[in-house]
Amino acid sequence: MNLQTWIYVASIAVALLSFGVAFYFQHWVKKIPSENKKIEGIADLIKKGAKTFLKREYGVLAKFAALMAVVIFLFLPKPIWVFESGSYVLPNLAMALAYLAGTTISAIAGVIGISIATVANAKSAEASQKGIKPAFMAGFRGGAVMGMAVVGSCLLGVTLVFWFTYAWLDSARILIGFSFGASSLALFAKAGGGIFTKTADISADIVGKVELGIAEDDPRNPAVIADNVGDNVGDVAGMGADLFDSNVASLAAALVIAVSLNATLPTQNFIPIVFCFAAAGLLASVIGVSTANIGKKGNPTRALNSSTYITTGVFLALTAVATYFLDLDFKWNIWGATAVGLMVGVIIGIATDYFTDDSKKPVKKTAEASESGPAFTILSGISYGFISAFPAMVGIAFSALIAYTLCFPISGSATGGMFGISMAAVGMLSIVGMIISNDAYGPIVDNARGLAEMGGLGDEAIEITDQLDSAGNTVKAVTKGFAIGAAGLTVIALLGAFMEEVNFEVPGTLTGFDVMDPVVFFGMLVGAAVPAVFCALLILAVNRNAQRMIKEIHRQFNEILGLREGKEGVTPEYDKCIDIATKGALKELIVAGGSVIIITLAVGFTGGVKALGGFLVGNIVVGLFLALFMSNSGGLWDNIESGHHGGKGSFAHKAAVTGDTVGDPFKDTAGPSINTQITVVSLIATLMAYIFISVHLF
Amino acid sequence: MNLQTWIYVASIAVALLSFGVAFYFQHWVKKIPSENKKIEGIADLIKKGAKTFLKREYGVLAKFAALMAVVIFLFLPKPIWVFESGSYVLPNLAMALAYLAGTTISAIAGVIGISIATVANAKSAEASQKGIKPAFMAGFRGGAVMGMAVVGSCLLGVTLVFWFTYAWLDSARILIGFSFGASSLALFAKAGGGIFTKTADISADIVGKVELGIAEDDPRNPAVIADNVGDNVGDVAGMGADLFDSNVASLAAALVIAVSLNATLPTQNFIPIVFCFAAAGLLASVIGVSTANIGKKGNPTRALNSSTYITTGVFLALTAVATYFLDLDFKWNIWGATAVGLMVGVIIGIATDYFTDDSKKPVKKTAEASESGPAFTILSGISYGFISAFPAMVGIAFSALIAYTLCFPISGSATGGMFGISMAAVGMLSIVGMIISNDAYGPIVDNARGLAEMGGLGDEAIEITDQLDSAGNTVKAVTKGFAIGAAGLTVIALLGAFMEEVNFEVPGTLTGFDVMDPVVFFGMLVGAAVPAVFCALLILAVNRNAQRMIKEIHRQFNEILGLREGKEGVTPEYDKCIDIATKGALKELIVAGGSVIIITLAVGFTGGVKALGGFLVGNIVVGLFLALFMSNSGGLWDNIESGHHGGKGSFAHKAAVTGDTVGDPFKDTAGPSINTQITVVSLIATLMAYIFISVHLF
Repeated sequence: MNLQTWIYVASIAVALLSFGVAFYFQHWVKKIPSENKKIEGIADLIKKGAKTFLKREYGVLAKFAALMAVVIFLFLPKPIWVFESGSYVLPNLAMALAYLAGTTISAIAGVIGISIATVANAKSAEASQKGIKPAFMAGFRGGAVMGMAVVGSCLLGVTLVFWFTYAWLDSARILIGFSFGASSLALFAKAGGGIFTKTADISADIVGKVELGIAEDDPRNPAVIADNVGDNVGDVAGMGADLFDSNVASLAAALVIAVSLNATLPTQNFIPIVFCFAAAGLLASVIGVSTANIGKKGNPTRALNSSTYITTGVFLALTAVATYFLDLDFKWNIWGATAVGLMVGVIIGIATDYFTDDSKKPVKKTAEASESGPAFTILSGISYGFISAFPAMVGIAFSALIAYTLCFPISGSATGGMFGISMAAVGMLSIVGMIISNDAYGPIVDNARGLAEMGGLGDEAIEITDQLDSAGNTVKAVTKGFAIGAAGLTVIALLGAFMEEVNFEVPGTLTGFDVMDPVVFFGMLVGAAVPAVFCALLILAVNRNAQRMIKEIHRQFNEILGLREGKEGVTPEYDKCIDIATKGALKELIVAGGSVIIITLAVGFTGGVKALGGFLVGNIVVGLFLALFMSNSGGLWDNIESGHHGGKGSFAHKAAVTGDTVGDPFKDTAGPSINTQITVVSLIATLMAYIFISVHLF
Repeated sequence: MNLQTWIYVASIAVALLSFGVAFYFQHWVKKIPSENKKIEGIADLIKKGAKTFLKREYGVLAKFAALMAVVIFLFLPKPIWVFESGSYVLPNLAMALAYLAGTTISAIAGVIGISIATVANAKSAEASQKGIKPAFMAGFRGGAVMGMAVVGSCLLGVTLVFWFTYAWLDSARILIGFSFGASSLALFAKAGGGIFTKTADISADIVGKVELGIAEDDPRNPAVIADNVGDNVGDVAGMGADLFDSNVASLAAALVIAVSLNATLPTQNFIPIVFCFAAAGLLASVIGVSTANIGKKGNPTRALNSSTYITTGVFLALTAVATYFLDLDFKWNIWGATAVGLMVGVIIGIATDYFTDDSKKPVKKTAEASESGPAFTILSGISYGFISAFPAMVGIAFSALIAYTLCFPISGSATGGMFGISMAAVGMLSIVGMIISNDAYGPIVDNARGLAEMGGLGDEAIEITDQLDSAGNTVKAVTKGFAIGAAGLTVIALLGAFMEEVNFEVPGTLTGFDVMDPVVFFGMLVGAAVPAVFCALLILAVNRNAQRMIKEIHRQFNEILGLREGKEGVTPEYDKCIDIATKGALKELIVAGGSVIIITLAVGFTGGVKALGGFLVGNIVVGLFLALFMSNSGGLWDNIESGHHGGKGSFAHKAAVTGDTVGDPFKDTAGPSINTQITVVSLIATLMAYIFISVHLF
């Protein structure tokens, strides 16, 4: 076996190890005894609701994916009737299959994550009666199953697809198909799940908290189960699919550029280092997740953060060792680029924390402004959100510049530099296994809090779950900033991959994207306008869908006798609310996703690959800004609700609730979906490069 | 006299003609008899308040400008100690003087505009007793004085500066100094005036309308005069300075590129066509303004729009005739580029109208959403604002592409193409005299409405001024869209001018700005984050300042006996509110403007001219998006307040008021200031090109 094969095998071994850890944690969580029938009953409703949504979502997705697979088979990488030193039937078939594999693997990871999350929530609730430690461990290990499953299957899938197709076609392009499959699923999971979760959350709050003044998780509220389902489908499955997508895309971009580097530098091989670092990241996450612990009276936020830092340290050490043993010119420059990516990720996370933590100035000032009414809550939150994008964008700008400069000498050309950026993205995403674990922990303990309340576990248990939940919220804001930063670097790397693919098709077509070229500029302006349209369609979808659900909740309270009074044995029709959220989410999602894809095709056929390059640049720049702004504003408003200005029911508190409601679709629907939108558009451009080179107007 | 001198003289003649029209209108308005002492008294307070603000603002500006002039003299275009076939003392002196001329001329135009606007408001109010026609004419001709003064002095200034310095230095760079002077003033006038006006508007509304439930223009309200002053300093002086700035910048960009074209094509002269078209635009505006009229029962909106269309038609005809007689290759292509610019301007105006008119879907849907509470008002308004940027950005993208493609053959190089874009900007700004007239009409009749109410002129008069005011609001949204579109094309043209200046310094330094170059990309990401920071600082400034003023209003209502009850002879201390608005505006403005300038310098010294090119691109792309989004969302919210969902005092109406309050700083402070911010940054980059070429890190 040569080195490359060794490294494929090692990557697969690490992936299998992470599956092992996932199985162990799953088993561990399931073994926690459960006694409270009421909690089990409600947890079951949540589980069923989540499964219903996933089933329907995957049903629609299956049709979409089947159609796409046929289109891919017919047209990509080249139309099937093209004949160039061989027919395109087999490569196109491989591309279509890789696409399907991308969607399927990500979907399976989502199912696994949801299955355990909807068990761990009840386990964590019950464990909370025994103290913070067992409750925390149940929540965290439940989340870690998702983290390990997602990243393991990502590495496994990428390794297998690349191994089987690279040697055969001498290109990494089939991997782009796999990545596109992952993106398609992410679009459905993140944007669709985002619409679902916020429809339910907002409707439940408006009728429950605002109109009737009942508690957040009161079982009389017909939307309460849908709300809990939403946490799972939006934050567990959606976020997992999103990061699966970014992770695959970053590896795909790095490998496409590595292949291109290999072609120019035949004595070198840049493929092993990519797999090596990816495997090291997963291994570091496995170690970080396995060692996560909390003292008996420990602080859950600190526990989550310290395992993140452990993972970061282990990753840097492992990759340094690997680099030492690899035989490659400029290998330390590559390591440096990776380390810079990871560091900047941490810095972005810290900056995000500053803007969303309720002990810091932005949240405090916004809470203060709320005393003058909702308009000031909104104006302050938007302003701080605007400012919050600055450090992250400057951070990404510097990391890209440094990574590029470090790796430029590899080939003495842009390809080396772009490889550096792609490795910075790999670095930033290296600890993604840990990030997903932390992120999935959030909705599990959020659910646990609700279950503790609905199951009547007593004040002490509720307080513990409250503490766990609040740690989840804090960590979530940070990981979200991290995810956006990583996606930012990834799409920059994809821009490099796009150029390599175009030049692979017709060598010398592109030397870059000069914005003084009017075709590039044209594409850039159009691309810059797209993310906002996408966001707007998603927000309006939540708006419309929530109106429908609110009507349904009103109907139930009016028509079901005894519901309002909480008469024994009277339960609301939870299913109807879940149904509304599901149908609306899927319908509206298709409009938003479809618009973006159509605009991309229109630009490609208008101005060809140059316009598309500009389009991607505009899309990335504005998309990054909007994603950061919306996520951070939303996170900020989420944390002022607990502000100390007047208490519940006061004028200031009402203003804060308005901020929170505006922030909900910002931070959980539109903001984090932008990543996926950008990735989808980048991959469509890359996949269809040949077609856009052949047919365009200007 | 050769052709070029002829055309200088003709331009000056047209400028003088426009001054003549302005004087005639001023005289005409002042001649309208006034009898109502109460109205005169209040109008006098407004006039004094506006003068106080301007005096202080110009005081701060004078210090700033003096400092800048010294810096310019020492360093620009090259450090004074540099010696290259001559000393730089005289060119630097010319640059410093041109800079001062730019600020001074724009400031004088502002004073003229304000002087007549604060007379015309009272005249229009009194005339409203005699019917809609005399009231409209007083308002319109009052606004036209500003329009004619601004555009006339723009053309005069540009012609004189260029005439005197071009032949001497063989470059148009001194004009850039003049343009920078205009931008400095615009930054103060637009951003400072914007903070002033919204501080007063919001504070007056919150205490008056929301807390005490008194009418909008109730004279008991201590902030009511400040509010009316704000309309004048923000919308008349600020907007005039903004468009003066864009207008000068577009001509400067066109002339810089024309000079560069002349150098490559020695048999051709591209300077006359620029002046010719600019003069034709002013002449067309003079004709449009002079023929504006309204029937006895006429519709004021239609009257304003039809004079805009007349101006457009006259401009196209005049320039076609001029083009026919000019002796220039590809002259019809240049005419075409100009026409495309103008057409797209009109299209952007129409699109803006769709998103802000209360008979169209976006406003209606947002009004409907308000029934569910303020959060939905905000979410809807933001969503439609996001979408509204799309048609305008696509329009600008197409106009730039078409103009470039049309004019590329002139030189067979990018310079020809960029000349096309700069001429499209000139075309879009050609009717700016008309636009400013329409725009200044708005605050005049808005004031008139208040005066009619405060002066007790009776229901019929109030209704007439209401009608005039509503026409002003509709037209304002459209002209604002137009102004942003024009500024968009202008800054693209400035990007071309920046490149020409860099290559003039060190030939061959730049062939373009390739975003795959990491230094360009670095600059782009940083530049993309800047407009949002600038907006946020302005909005937070309004927020803070309004809190201060609200406190003062509360104090007055509590401490001044009889004020609340409206006792005869008791008046509030209007001055104190004006003072708070003034001080706060100037203080906060310096922070916002200073931050932007410091970041620009930091990027220039980090990555040199390449990074600055990227910086400008990012700044333009995100800035355009934000300007369109904020102006249109704000305009939309402004128009739902009159929505038909529940009437005043209802839940929906309160939600609408929240939207309106959020929209106020969006549409009148942050949104329209972004233009100026972008222009300032572009001009700094261009002016300091030599220094950034010499000193940078990467």
